[in-house]
Amino acid sequence: MLYPRPLQRLLAELERLPGIGPKSAQRLAFYLLRSAKDENAALADAIKSVREQIHPCRNCGNFTDENLCDICRAPRRENGQLCIVSEARDVLSIENSNEFYGRYHVLGGVINPLDGIGPSDLRLDNLLDRIADENIEEVIVALSPTVEGETTGSFLASLLHEHVEKVKVTQLARGLPFGGDLDYADQVTIAGALRGRREL
Amino acid sequence: MLYPRPLQRLLAELERLPGIGPKSAQRLAFYLLRSAKDENAALADAIKSVREQIHPCRNCGNFTDENLCDICRAPRRENGQLCIVSEARDVLSIENSNEFYGRYHVLGGVINPLDGIGPSDLRLDNLLDRIADENIEEVIVALSPTVEGETTGSFLASLLHEHVEKVKVTQLARGLPFGGDLDYADQVTIAGALRGRREL
Repeated sequence: MLYPRPLQRLLAELERLPGIGPKSAQRLAFYLLRSAKDENAALADAIKSVREQIHPCRNCGNFTDENLCDICRAPRRENGQLCIVSEARDVLSIENSNEFYGRYHVLGGVINPLDGIGPSDLRLDNLLDRIADENIEEVIVALSPTVEGETTGSFLASLLHEHVEKVKVTQLARGLPFGGDLDYADQVTIAGALRGRREL
Repeated sequence: MLYPRPLQRLLAELERLPGIGPKSAQRLAFYLLRSAKDENAALADAIKSVREQIHPCRNCGNFTDENLCDICRAPRRENGQLCIVSEARDVLSIENSNEFYGRYHVLGGVINPLDGIGPSDLRLDNLLDRIADENIEEVIVALSPTVEGETTGSFLASLLHEHVEKVKVTQLARGLPFGGDLDYADQVTIAGALRGRREL
């Protein structure tokens, strides 16, 4: 037996989504079959309008439904610190830590020669102007601790040191994650934690 | 920082779905932010139309976008066997086993006094008529092996034996699931498997 066509279509559409396999798609589809009509309409509308209304902030690349994002519009966020992240979703991760009160710059990726992504594919065109215009004194490179992240970090450090006078370039500390078990930590993490050890 | 409003709305809508927590909702939302506009429109449309076009089959309660479902319209499925399931999604599970070629009857639930679900809440009104009209000789009760499933099975058996002459009522075998490990099987399953043992 095959499912009726509208249900087949929904299953196919759901299975395209990341992390949704045939079983999850079925569970979601059956839920959507039973939920109230206006709830489905609300979900459908949210899916359509998110793509139509959200775009990168003209200044930093963060998500926004206006010209400039909330952070770029807030004057008190101009505190001399600029945090460089790979993707717009990383902005929220940093914000949630409640440790950073400056502005962001979203690269839109990291250098990855295997995937053919070089420096020219990153959002770098207005970075140097921003550092001058927004009186940036410290650039914090907040990229994932991967080979690609490290490469991009080194590239950014040399770019900044070459073009900007007196800017501090830092990166997020390497170390043991909170709640992690020393037993399960890999050797690179332990080496990084040792190198970055702090006095108690 | 808060996400822009259209993104917040999408996250809230996605988190309502079963099995979708905040992290999965974020991953889906970021995917939908980047995917092509017409892909989002197709998903949104599938979600809306599934609820508008699919309804229970008038005869058996299976999903259909017509008056009668594919199985009720196929004359060769009238083979004297009727399989009673709890939900329309169970029809596909049985169909996928390729062991049953008769018709179905979807109850729309099982008897559950704690949730206030009694026999009058089940789709039973046309069951006795169907058994006569479709020349049913065997009713296979295919409910989950839970307390509620067993209770509903006993209720159905006595209902059928009371009102129908010469109908066989069977239920799915209890036993060890394929690929299961005897070591991990609970005692009720092992007891059922022993009671239902077959000669080799």
